[in-house]
Amino acid sequence: MGVMRMGYVHAKVTDLAEADQHYSQVMGLYETAREDGTIYYKGWDEFDHHSVVIEEGGVGVVKVGFKVRTLEDLAQYETRLQQFGATVERMSAGENLKVGDGIRFIAPNGHVFELYHEMEQVGVEVGTHCPDSFPMDLRGIGAPNLDHGLFVGDDVEGVEKLFIEALDFYPSERMLATGDDGAPLIATWLSCGNKSHDIAFLKGPDGKLHHFAFYLKDWNHVTAAADILVHHDTPMDLPPTRHGITRGETTYFFDPSGNRNETFAGGYLMYPDRPCVEWTMDQLGKGLDYYRREVTPTFLTVYS
Amino acid sequence: MGVMRMGYVHAKVTDLAEADQHYSQVMGLYETAREDGTIYYKGWDEFDHHSVVIEEGGVGVVKVGFKVRTLEDLAQYETRLQQFGATVERMSAGENLKVGDGIRFIAPNGHVFELYHEMEQVGVEVGTHCPDSFPMDLRGIGAPNLDHGLFVGDDVEGVEKLFIEALDFYPSERMLATGDDGAPLIATWLSCGNKSHDIAFLKGPDGKLHHFAFYLKDWNHVTAAADILVHHDTPMDLPPTRHGITRGETTYFFDPSGNRNETFAGGYLMYPDRPCVEWTMDQLGKGLDYYRREVTPTFLTVYS
Amino acid sequence: MGVMRMGYVHAKVTDLAEADQHYSQVMGLYETAREDGTIYYKGWDEFDHHSVVIEEGGVGVVKVGFKVRTLEDLAQYETRLQQFGATVERMSAGENLKVGDGIRFIAPNGHVFELYHEMEQVGVEVGTHCPDSFPMDLRGIGAPNLDHGLFVGDDVEGVEKLFIEALDFYPSERMLATGDDGAPLIATWLSCGNKSHDIAFLKGPDGKLHHFAFYLKDWNHVTAAADILVHHDTPMDLPPTRHGITRGETTYFFDPSGNRNETFAGGYLMYPDRPCVEWTMDQLGKGLDYYRREVTPTFLTVYS
Amino acid sequence: MGVMRMGYVHAKVTDLAEADQHYSQVMGLYETAREDGTIYYKGWDEFDHHSVVIEEGGVGVVKVGFKVRTLEDLAQYETRLQQFGATVERMSAGENLKVGDGIRFIAPNGHVFELYHEMEQVGVEVGTHCPDSFPMDLRGIGAPNLDHGLFVGDDVEGVEKLFIEALDFYPSERMLATGDDGAPLIATWLSCGNKSHDIAFLKGPDGKLHHFAFYLKDWNHVTAAADILVHHDTPMDLPPTRHGITRGETTYFFDPSGNRNETFAGGYLMYPDRPCVEWTMDQLGKGLDYYRREVTPTFLTVYS
Repeated sequence: MGVMRMGYVHAKVTDLAEADQHYSQVMGLYETAREDGTIYYKGWDEFDHHSVVIEEGGVGVVKVGFKVRTLEDLAQYETRLQQFGATVERMSAGENLKVGDGIRFIAPNGHVFELYHEMEQVGVEVGTHCPDSFPMDLRGIGAPNLDHGLFVGDDVEGVEKLFIEALDFYPSERMLATGDDGAPLIATWLSCGNKSHDIAFLKGPDGKLHHFAFYLKDWNHVTAAADILVHHDTPMDLPPTRHGITRGETTYFFDPSGNRNETFAGGYLMYPDRPCVEWTMDQLGKGLDYYRREVTPTFLTVYS
Repeated sequence: MGVMRMGYVHAKVTDLAEADQHYSQVMGLYETAREDGTIYYKGWDEFDHHSVVIEEGGVGVVKVGFKVRTLEDLAQYETRLQQFGATVERMSAGENLKVGDGIRFIAPNGHVFELYHEMEQVGVEVGTHCPDSFPMDLRGIGAPNLDHGLFVGDDVEGVEKLFIEALDFYPSERMLATGDDGAPLIATWLSCGNKSHDIAFLKGPDGKLHHFAFYLKDWNHVTAAADILVHHDTPMDLPPTRHGITRGETTYFFDPSGNRNETFAGGYLMYPDRPCVEWTMDQLGKGLDYYRREVTPTFLTVYS
Repeated sequence: MGVMRMGYVHAKVTDLAEADQHYSQVMGLYETAREDGTIYYKGWDEFDHHSVVIEEGGVGVVKVGFKVRTLEDLAQYETRLQQFGATVERMSAGENLKVGDGIRFIAPNGHVFELYHEMEQVGVEVGTHCPDSFPMDLRGIGAPNLDHGLFVGDDVEGVEKLFIEALDFYPSERMLATGDDGAPLIATWLSCGNKSHDIAFLKGPDGKLHHFAFYLKDWNHVTAAADILVHHDTPMDLPPTRHGITRGETTYFFDPSGNRNETFAGGYLMYPDRPCVEWTMDQLGKGLDYYRREVTPTFLTVYS
Repeated sequence: MGVMRMGYVHAKVTDLAEADQHYSQVMGLYETAREDGTIYYKGWDEFDHHSVVIEEGGVGVVKVGFKVRTLEDLAQYETRLQQFGATVERMSAGENLKVGDGIRFIAPNGHVFELYHEMEQVGVEVGTHCPDSFPMDLRGIGAPNLDHGLFVGDDVEGVEKLFIEALDFYPSERMLATGDDGAPLIATWLSCGNKSHDIAFLKGPDGKLHHFAFYLKDWNHVTAAADILVHHDTPMDLPPTRHGITRGETTYFFDPSGNRNETFAGGYLMYPDRPCVEWTMDQLGKGLDYYRREVTPTFLTVYS
């Protein structure tokens, strides 16, 4: 039980300046470092150095980092991943800016994941002494935290098995093709804590990004964020609604390079003993867009 | 890292019928069992048999149960509690209705806690197959979950130490008497997962209950719940506001016997590596009632 | 300035029992009278006997009543309507259940409107002495008030002119086909008070109903109402969003006969001196669905 | 029926710079003019030149302007005010910056009111052509509109009578000392349109200001505004709650000179035929603070 959270997403963008405008002015992330062709950001309620990294040259996701609770967890997960059959390599402190030693593996769906225990903390604007509840004068949406990601690849069963067996995640919701026995698994939502999901996987071409999501406080913040997206002419993919799956309140939209983002609030309290919810593809409309009950055509076709 | 959540609060009430009216009609809990002088309830989004038990004969809290992830956790915590110096006893399946084997100890602040791994699941009304997001026709407030409790006792340092060292909790916020070195600890808020707190302790007479809280979805549900409390003439202690401490959106009120309840929403995402927030008593007003910045006189004087 | 509000909508339904289920259990209106083939309803915050009348036998709107402030207003508007060139007839007390004397005219878009000054008051559940802010235990959506209607007909210029010149309404927003001089008027939104609109007209086949709307308190009530619609499998036409036109927060849906209803909140404070907002058809997407910026196909094609 | 709204409040402040900081940075009003010792502001959704005027030199209210619909209304109200027995004087265009001809009278409670028909329009940032629903980057609370005022004076019956008989207002709610026949009128809330009130009067020392209020969109904006007040250490008088009277969602606070302001949302749809709600002083707690049901001590004692 050592994985705490998805600590960072490292994505590719076609134009760094445009992407910076989006992540800093629209999403309202704080820039914490900038190197040749790469920018690092954090949300206002994150203490660690960064949670989003963008790198010029293409689209999609380069890799995703999960922070573990102890150094021992790194060794433990290395062993278990190897036992699972994954190819694991050690990564050294400094390979990722401000990030300590860790391990790296490629999941069965083609995605690169890293586990690490240390990242330099830079703190938060409100501090930790009798703090205000949030900073004034946030820019744009003012996203407080990175929340989760949905990653595309062919072997959903395989990657789900890996995250459950080698990394202690537990599934909160699963989508099967049909209600028949042995129907293929189309998607799975997995938690490593009390959020309704920390990561999710969808069947499709290997190594693709469906979206990564920012946590917002509640439904009113989700709709207020949508106003800001509209103001900036951000291409909206799924306007504010609630997912039937996870009950999350949501908006999908695209960064200027075509990477899908989400603002996400709500969901239920997840625990390892909470029974997994099962969906079938004929109910995907309800699962995706609880009010409209239709599947946005892009949902199953547009990835980066 | 085996404690999942505060699974139940077992409280005493002076009049069972009046209390039942409150917990079933105002709070909207589901009655799941009734024995001589005792009633068991669950919230609509809880799968386990019960989360609140009321027993006729007095006021205050009888005991509090925490559910652990595995059977092995029980043995492990038994050992660690003994090493810590606590008196621990085994409890057998059936000592608590529908609850399996477990252990019981008395904390340094005089409270009785139980750890258990199994409780019969009764499920939820919406089911787990392509479910609706919530049941229609909830009664009253329709609280989905028990959330946390604040327990009073003299030895706050001791009980905090026990929960951290023997049970793997981590402090999210702490209130010291002053900013001076060695100032006494007045209160502490502890998490065992991603909620801003799962339990909290306050300095005062041993074995007393400050409040137990029900989780609500967001601020709008907190204020809608307050309308229902007003309609039922439920004595309100702290009308809808936000805590500076934990950022939680809150209302305090009393059940007919004088046990304080809370409806609670919000708070931030807690992790073991999130720095602990520190408060001093001169800022208790801001910590308790972020807008009014005054301490409700009852906060430090009325317990059950 | 004598027209106070749209006091009633009288609509046709194909099946009275199904429609009753919708208006009483889903919309949560109070039935106040029932005659052979006709049911009368009011919202919980309306004092007058009824605001919605449904009559078995078809679909669409039979007529719409506007309540005026004084008896003298009736005579004044009769004269002005005649001067405008409309055919006006007197209607007698009792022609409409519980409604006093009035006048009736057919508007240039083929709709029948009635003006009246008196309707029997039946009061509200919370009373008028130190009242609670709303009744507990409302059914379904619990709509407090009828709000406005959008009516279809070919001569939008004509009906707008009539409502402005003969009835003292003022336009809050207008939609032109293009930005060119002399472009045809496609739709107009008119106010007789401080709401952003009390009635609206859309170009299309004469005498058709686009929708009538119920007032809700705010955005959270609009989305909570959508959950109730989903629960009842009410066909949804435009899921919860904001209109760019009037800024109103909205959901469109259909009663079982295919009459479109709306739940509506928000909008700005309207006054006779507030400049009229102008739209062109190329921006209808933004005007209708501020977030999605697309025109629901049914919007310009499905009427009853 | 010619009075449209409370168009401006002209108040005194002890320190112009401090007051400017409050009204421009905290309330987020737009400065539209500045003369020696006087500043003019408007809200972002107001088209007229100003709605708030502050003038250095003391505290309290200098005068209040109501905008009427037509020039004829000015003459009509002049006559009716004289018939009522009020002393009325003509005021000339330019006596108030950007304001046309009008009339001025002193009400029985010692307050100076002005009626006018013309004020230069300066428009709004979003414009009137396919507008966005609101401007981005509002400062602080970003209040859209002035809403209403509550004015103190001894002769509440007299000023109520004047506003009803000479100015066509109608009472929405009234507070009597007791439920006995002939009990004195303590306060009255009056509407000239569809808002639950446009002006209110409270018994007390003549010519005093209780508060003037800014309209906000809904409860979430009221609580978000309170966060901004807290951030600026604005003295809060009544933290976010709902009034039982008018059902309005509210926060009371003080500008740096001690003039009480309010942020206000909600309330019901008012019409001339809506029965007046009656309160008695023993229920003032419920009427003022629906959740807490206590009278803030300052409510009946602190005026400016």
